[in-house]
Amino acid sequence: MSSLTFFIILSVKTDTAEGPVFSSGHNLKELTAKYGKDYHAEVFNSCAKLMKIIQTIPVPVIAEVNGLATAAGCQLVASCDIAVASEKSRFATPGVNVGLFCSTPAVALGRAVPRKVALEMLFTGEPISAHDALLHGLVSKVVPEESLMKETKRIAQRICQTSHSVVALGKATFYRQMAQSLNDAYRLTSHAMVENLALKDGQEGINAFVQKRKPVWTNIKGISKDDKEDK
Amino acid sequence: MSSLTFFIILSVKTDTAEGPVFSSGHNLKELTAKYGKDYHAEVFNSCAKLMKIIQTIPVPVIAEVNGLATAAGCQLVASCDIAVASEKSRFATPGVNVGLFCSTPAVALGRAVPRKVALEMLFTGEPISAHDALLHGLVSKVVPEESLMKETKRIAQRICQTSHSVVALGKATFYRQMAQSLNDAYRLTSHAMVENLALKDGQEGINAFVQKRKPVWTNIKGISKDDKEDK
Amino acid sequence: MSSLTFFIILSVKTDTAEGPVFSSGHNLKELTAKYGKDYHAEVFNSCAKLMKIIQTIPVPVIAEVNGLATAAGCQLVASCDIAVASEKSRFATPGVNVGLFCSTPAVALGRAVPRKVALEMLFTGEPISAHDALLHGLVSKVVPEESLMKETKRIAQRICQTSHSVVALGKATFYRQMAQSLNDAYRLTSHAMVENLALKDGQEGINAFVQKRKPVWTNIKGISKDDKEDK
Repeated sequence: MSSLTFFIILSVKTDTAEGPVFSSGHNLKELTAKYGKDYHAEVFNSCAKLMKIIQTIPVPVIAEVNGLATAAGCQLVASCDIAVASEKSRFATPGVNVGLFCSTPAVALGRAVPRKVALEMLFTGEPISAHDALLHGLVSKVVPEESLMKETKRIAQRICQTSHSVVALGKATFYRQMAQSLNDAYRLTSHAMVENLALKDGQEGINAFVQKRKPVWTNIKGISKDDKEDK
Repeated sequence: MSSLTFFIILSVKTDTAEGPVFSSGHNLKELTAKYGKDYHAEVFNSCAKLMKIIQTIPVPVIAEVNGLATAAGCQLVASCDIAVASEKSRFATPGVNVGLFCSTPAVALGRAVPRKVALEMLFTGEPISAHDALLHGLVSKVVPEESLMKETKRIAQRICQTSHSVVALGKATFYRQMAQSLNDAYRLTSHAMVENLALKDGQEGINAFVQKRKPVWTNIKGISKDDKEDK
Repeated sequence: MSSLTFFIILSVKTDTAEGPVFSSGHNLKELTAKYGKDYHAEVFNSCAKLMKIIQTIPVPVIAEVNGLATAAGCQLVASCDIAVASEKSRFATPGVNVGLFCSTPAVALGRAVPRKVALEMLFTGEPISAHDALLHGLVSKVVPEESLMKETKRIAQRICQTSHSVVALGKATFYRQMAQSLNDAYRLTSHAMVENLALKDGQEGINAFVQKRKPVWTNIKGISKDDKEDK
């Protein structure tokens, strides 16, 4: 497995007369009455499925935002694991302007920013700046436009230096425990730590640390030989 | 329905010798022993009922804060959908000073700001500034005192330009999905989007967008004629 | 009970060649394969138990951070009730570097900061600054290094001026209600407010306020005499 496949960067930029747009969400023409309820239901179900897949696939997903991310585009940013934005980026859920409240984007937005910030965005449809998106937790980093690709790449390369199997276990465990009570979360994660240590790359990492050398990852899900001998 | 009735602004300011106060919560004289446990229970139940109603009524509720919001007054701000504060505003849960821990305010406060910020406020009783309230998500906007009414009105007028029935559906859906798991939340909101599209104002908004004209809202909960023809 | 025992300050600083470290978490040598799965499980269970005890003991726990808090050290900060950090402090979950994803620290971290900030820390292992820790809610206050002890002491002394029984009830109620739905949380806390008023120190505080004098706390869990007479 090439290290270059070990992350996904979502970066959609379209230079238009109105300026660059990250993603503006659904095609509203598909939402007119003539397409019918069943078709509309399928549109929103597919969209929700995509948003949930971002969190269930075993590799980190980074949003690289340079422009305006609106509606399902804003939902996409909110659903990624990490989001880096350029200073000029803005974020909005403007559905109220076309009589369609951004209820599905609100699932991701309401879990990313404080409730009052989410509701002001949803009720007014007005955009927030990149700076405010960082302040409120919608993105994890804001950089000047000219540094955007460099910073996203830097994070991706940093992730590439880690063990894929360790990160896959960590990501899956993270999302599972976040939906649990504190007690259940600690039960699940304590178990995950033991499992992690039993991975080939878990033991390789600890051994390399003790032996003061760089670890060499296998990136496979296998149990370490040492651990099997223990049994 | 006049558009001016389509939001509620909570703005209580009393100029006293101690300076302006937004709301200082309960009347402590009612909480002495002679009123008895049943009376005390009724006081707190009524208060909780009010806080929950803010989230269940179908119109946006905006807190306009200019001064000190303490105890149940701070809880009120935390419970609103949107909160705009003047720069001089401050927020506190000082119950410990009178031997009455702000446990009911903590329900709203603890869901609005990070846990450590909430606990420092609750344990010390000390106020936080408007700036910190914005930093931590207790309010959604801070403006100079002289711009406070203008900014609150601007947000309210912005909301007035949207469809009341669309916003009512959106607000109800928002609070319901926020209490759910990600899967349940997406199931609920995907359904709400389809329902929203079937509203008269849902189709009017999409059609106006496609036809490049301004939408004309009916503000009623009715199903659109077009949608019925689909069936 | 001396007021000096009425809080816990966790402050571990070691001046080393690498600079001061708040806490760097587990001893990795204990996590090699030769110790075996059962031993590993015990290490993580004990650690989780400690983190949960911080929230269940009846006194406030303040983290005083001056240096680098990593892995379980970062988890410790995230688990405290209050955290004050010096400007030079940094926070990291660098487990990926040694092939051991910080899954147990992520329980506390993921509940303290926005999800994207947590995942960027967990996936890259890179530290965040004290300023960013404050911005994202991991600590409640950042001060210059020379003011650190003074500020922590000031908060502790402020807490010492309150009633221990009132704070104990308040802390226990806070963590219980935070895990509940809004309705359940208001039911629990409304009841706690009535209970609080029935405490000796609850009535003392209200009476002192009404009588415009300083309260004198007994710090005991007893029911007030006045309240019993009511019955």
